[in-house]
Parts: sequence; C-alpha cells; structure tokens
Amino acid sequence: MTDAKAPDSSRRSERSRRAIYDAALALVVEVGYGRTTIEGIAARAGVGKQTIYRWWPSKSAVLMEAFLDLAGQGTDGPGATGEGPARSYAFPDTGDLAADLRTVLRATVDEMNNPVVEGPTRALAAEGVLDAALGAQFVEKLLDPAIRLYVDRLRVAEEAGQVRPGIDHRIATELFVGPLYHRWLLRTLPLTHAYADALVDYALAGLAPRP
Amino acid sequence: MTDAKAPDSSRRSERSRRAIYDAALALVVEVGYGRTTIEGIAARAGVGKQTIYRWWPSKSAVLMEAFLDLAGQGTDGPGATGEGPARSYAFPDTGDLAADLRTVLRATVDEMNNPVVEGPTRALAAEGVLDAALGAQFVEKLLDPAIRLYVDRLRVAEEAGQVRPGIDHRIATELFVGPLYHRWLLRTLPLTHAYADALVDYALAGLAPRP
Repeated sequence: MTDAKAPDSSRRSERSRRAIYDAALALVVEVGYGRTTIEGIAARAGVGKQTIYRWWPSKSAVLMEAFLDLAGQGTDGPGATGEGPARSYAFPDTGDLAADLRTVLRATVDEMNNPVVEGPTRALAAEGVLDAALGAQFVEKLLDPAIRLYVDRLRVAEEAGQVRPGIDHRIATELFVGPLYHRWLLRTLPLTHAYADALVDYALAGLAPRP
Repeated sequence: MTDAKAPDSSRRSERSRRAIYDAALALVVEVGYGRTTIEGIAARAGVGKQTIYRWWPSKSAVLMEAFLDLAGQGTDGPGATGEGPARSYAFPDTGDLAADLRTVLRATVDEMNNPVVEGPTRALAAEGVLDAALGAQFVEKLLDPAIRLYVDRLRVAEEAGQVRPGIDHRIATELFVGPLYHRWLLRTLPLTHAYADALVDYALAGLAPRP
C-alpha cells in the first residue's frame, strides 16, 4: 500500500469497524450475548468473517471493544475528553465536591436512561451476572476505570479536609454508584436527577469530617 | 377423598412440591431461565406435567414460587419467623439502629455467599435485567417485601430521634442494599461482614440528625 492510498484505506477501515460495532451491539440486544456469533456479526455488518478475525481474536474481544466504544459515545457529558475508545475521562474538580458528584451522577443517570446505551449494556451486564469470567472483563474494562476516577476525586477531597480522614475511598464510592446500579439493573424505581442529588446529599453527609 | 386419607395425600403433595421446586431451581442454573420448561421440570422431578399444571398456571409461576421458597430457606438468620414461603420476617429492633442494620446486612451477605441460593438467584436476576416484566415480578415478590422492612425500621428510628427528620426512608434504605447488590451482581469485590459493617458506619452517619 502506498502513502497516497492510506487515507482512503483508513477511512474504509473506520467505516467497517463502525459497521461491525453496530452489528455486534444490535445482535446482542436481539438474540442475547450467548447466541451472538462472529458469523452473525459479519453477515449483518456486510463484511467477511476474515475481516473480523483480522482485527479481533474472538467474539468476546469484538463485543468488549464495541461496548467500550459505546460507553465512550454515551458519556459525551462532563468529564469526557477526546474521541472514540481511546479518549480519556476526568472527574470534574471545581473545589465543590457535592456539586462535582451531582454533575457526574446526573450524567450517569442520563447515560443509563439512553436507549442506545441501555439495551446492549443490559445484555452485557446480564451475561456477566451469570458468567464470572465475562463479568470480570466487564468490571476490569468498563467499571473499574470509572470507579478509579471517583476514588481519586475523594482522595483530593480528603486532602482538602472535605471528607473524613482515613475513610475507604472505594467503599465510599460504592455509596454513590451502588444504589444507581441497583435501581437500574433491578428496575426498582425511576432513575432521575433528583435521585442522584439525594444520594449525594445523604451519602456525602456520612463521609463528612466528624467533630 | 376421605378425611382419613388426607394426611398421607398431603405429605405426598408436599414431597412432590419440594421435588418440583428442586428440579426447577436446578434446571434454571444448568440451562438458564429461558430454556427451562414445564416439561423439563416435570421430567426431572419425576412427576407428570399435569401435576405441575394442577398447581401452577405457567413456568414463571412455578419458578417464582420456587424462588420464594428458596429465599425463605436462605434466611434462617435473624428476622425469620415461621416456616416455608408463608412465613413472615421482622427486622430486629433492639433500640440500637446501627447494630440492627449490621445484623441484617451481615445475614444478607451470608445468604448471597451461600451457593445453594446464589446460583438460582443469579439466573433469575440476570433474566430480570433483560426482561422488564419478569424483573418487575422479582422486585414485587422478592425485593420489595425486604425493602419495606428497612423502611419501617428507619421510620421507628426517626421517631426515636436517631435519624434526621424528613429523610426519604426508601432512598436511605438503598444506601445499604444498593452497594451490596452492586458487589454481588457485578462481582466487583468480595462480600464480607467487614464490608457490611463499613456500609452501616458510612451511610448511617449520613442519615444522622444534623446539628
């Protein structure tokens, strides 16, 4: 391939990659994680099986990248910088911990309520509830990077004297994200901004410095 | 049927019912909720299909009762009174809200870590993540009754001046149960008594009366 051809070829690859992601996510919603196959994704995306195998070693690899890409699309709110799966996220730090937590939790509520994100994410989460190995991948690649941002923000808040010294920042983070996921996964009650705000109000008071 | 025969017949019915529950829960773990059928349950339990249809109108009805029975078996800890699916639960009230919450959350941790309970409950929860109608049944019959006990206990605590007046007891309850389910469903980190105690410590401080 000559240099002159590279831009065209790269655009074509990018289109194929996008078609493969879209096909993979649509299939996982329609037939479930277990019955989604490389063959099915290739047929739906209009590419050959070999095109997929050239880029990914397995069905779970292509699906995980499709999910990472989707999570990147779904979090165009506060904290997202750059584009595509490679972009990085930052937790807002305005100095007002409560306001920053409200901003992030409200954006998470919006993402969970976004139908484009919801269907595939439910399919992946349900499979992870059953399959420990897949669940571990979901946690490592999708959930833990987000949790680390909370943990880092809480550490900064502790240094600023805004939360109690010595609290476990990981457990503290789960006070915010645990109830959100509980409502969403188990569909107990609606996920709203008011709910996000109440979680921040209640949980943050529990992490405040004690007299 | 004469009165004299009733006790024998009733014992036989009880044995069939137990065999049907056991078969239904074993199948749901092995082949998943979607592929569990009345035929499969009947074959495994060694009863005729008609025996199942005499007692339950559908597969989802027999499975939900099997789960209710399992949840009843799994909570032989504090708060359980009576026997079988019809028994009722009470939240401990020693006057010490923190101690009572620790007791209940530790018992919940033990139940979630019990392999007899874990497999079928994961199968049901995963299906509820995907299927809104089934998820609603799971919430109504299994989850909400437990949540109401927390809400009632927090109301008593508010009347005793132990939590802030005017807090939303339902949201407050989710600060305790949300993080537990989050760890369990998504398998992020181990569920331990120490974790349960930390949740009570952090979250309860957030619900305390404010000066």
